[in-house]
Amino acid sequence: MKGTVGELGEFGLIKELTSRLTSTPEVCLGPGDDAAVVAAPDRRVVATTDVLVEGRHFRRDWSTAYDVGRKAAAQNLADIAAMGAAPTALLLGLVVPGDTPVNWPSELMDGLRDEADVAAAAVVGGDVVRGDTITVSITALGDLRGRQPVTRSGARPGDVLAVAGWLGWSAAGLAVLTRGFRSPRAFVEAHRRPEPPYHAGPAGAALGATSMIDISDGLVADLGHVAAASGVHIDVRRALLDVPAQMSDIGRAVGVDPLRWVLTGGEDHAIAATFPNDVKLPARWRRIGEVRTVTAAPRVTVDGEPWDQAGGWNHFATEG
Amino acid sequence: MKGTVGELGEFGLIKELTSRLTSTPEVCLGPGDDAAVVAAPDRRVVATTDVLVEGRHFRRDWSTAYDVGRKAAAQNLADIAAMGAAPTALLLGLVVPGDTPVNWPSELMDGLRDEADVAAAAVVGGDVVRGDTITVSITALGDLRGRQPVTRSGARPGDVLAVAGWLGWSAAGLAVLTRGFRSPRAFVEAHRRPEPPYHAGPAGAALGATSMIDISDGLVADLGHVAAASGVHIDVRRALLDVPAQMSDIGRAVGVDPLRWVLTGGEDHAIAATFPNDVKLPARWRRIGEVRTVTAAPRVTVDGEPWDQAGGWNHFATEG
Repeated sequence: MKGTVGELGEFGLIKELTSRLTSTPEVCLGPGDDAAVVAAPDRRVVATTDVLVEGRHFRRDWSTAYDVGRKAAAQNLADIAAMGAAPTALLLGLVVPGDTPVNWPSELMDGLRDEADVAAAAVVGGDVVRGDTITVSITALGDLRGRQPVTRSGARPGDVLAVAGWLGWSAAGLAVLTRGFRSPRAFVEAHRRPEPPYHAGPAGAALGATSMIDISDGLVADLGHVAAASGVHIDVRRALLDVPAQMSDIGRAVGVDPLRWVLTGGEDHAIAATFPNDVKLPARWRRIGEVRTVTAAPRVTVDGEPWDQAGGWNHFATEG
Repeated sequence: MKGTVGELGEFGLIKELTSRLTSTPEVCLGPGDDAAVVAAPDRRVVATTDVLVEGRHFRRDWSTAYDVGRKAAAQNLADIAAMGAAPTALLLGLVVPGDTPVNWPSELMDGLRDEADVAAAAVVGGDVVRGDTITVSITALGDLRGRQPVTRSGARPGDVLAVAGWLGWSAAGLAVLTRGFRSPRAFVEAHRRPEPPYHAGPAGAALGATSMIDISDGLVADLGHVAAASGVHIDVRRALLDVPAQMSDIGRAVGVDPLRWVLTGGEDHAIAATFPNDVKLPARWRRIGEVRTVTAAPRVTVDGEPWDQAGGWNHFATEG
């Protein structure tokens, strides 16, 4: 569709965006009324919100609107999965300048729809308003399917630490992009469009996970939340971490230890979980460490040593 | 708390904001994990999202952060009520510049909490990120308590049209404020802090409402959505509309027909509904018109005539 958001107007834009949507059996009432209605068979609903701001969380010259949509959906759906729940629905709050080409929000919506589809969820509603900076606010809903939510606070000494999904791929891709390159493609793609292991969330809950978390700020930083909430010491084993040869090549090319991407890169939205020691983990869960008794304060170590770049991503840190 | 959001940092701000929250029995798991868990006893959840941008939907010199919080919560909770559902939870997506005093988001959260409390709901989660323009994105959830959702599409010829809550008060208050005045206080307060009739939503559903809508864009404009979705003609009777004497005084003072505020002012978040003709409406619902058979196209009239200022609020219209 040609023209700008301002030319199309609020109701025209809403019509254009909702025309692109698909539905699922869980959608009792989709967009077009005061609110949507979504099935919650468990009698509880899991809900999370994330906001992405242009220039801070994405750049229009690095990511297409479609990819921003995929990514915005992915990070919210991953939060639902990391509670052990199955995602059911997304809602979009969108701020766009009036001079934005209509294609931008349209393709954003296509990305949201397609990523929701990967997780068997659907976009059910939203709001579009005018403003100076493109801002994408997503809420995701999910269903626990009769299981208890898997929180950050249940890890126990003796548990094994395992991860499903990718670690460090998005960070390596970003390192490539910030240096003006567009390849290796697999890593650039991983940055543009993460592939969280949605099914691993409910599957991990069914396997008896004692704690679970979406890795959004970096492995060490996010495990720090689990350690603090559970009152435990979590030790990651370097030898168990997967550093692909091509990631090592990028590291050499740009002068960065690739282990840093694996330990502090967050945007792949892997899921980390702790399990009782005797659990038989299927192949999608890779054991990467263990839970120990706290000696001093709850903490995360790598091969028993503090990891000094554990800060992860501070959303209020000065840019650059 | 002193200092700026940037000085406090992301995790400090989240801690400060969540420390202000209260809970309800419907909150199974509050803030602090990957997602919240909220009771959905009906096995369906009602969900809606609205975004407010500083300079467009609120001004910091006209409204305190607390009032912005009350208002942002109110407009979302009213959408839930207008489906016939009882609000249960709010989620906040907040964009703030780093140099914003911490008091601003803190007082915003107090406002969200207190307005949620009025509706027997609770703030259960959110996200805070840094950006140039304060942007408040709210998602509200609700429970249908075993009743079917009341949509915009069920109005039938012969139904009566009724409204619960206030009409035109916020618009009259805005007219006062834009002219540099701070009184009459009741209208200025109505603009700063609307009081949607939350309980009227589920009560209206229980009374057998055939259609229901939150008046957010103006009575005539929003009834237009009901007329279109239901395929009916809705006629509003001028003589049945309540125009308080003080509103007429303001109208004379600023040279505006106060009926215009009543017919096109949206931000009071009244609830309009249609009911079978034989329903006995309790006092909180005031009959203001009727539903007729369509002759040409679905439409809304006032005393049988088109209302020529029916456009309501277009969120992409040029400012001023």
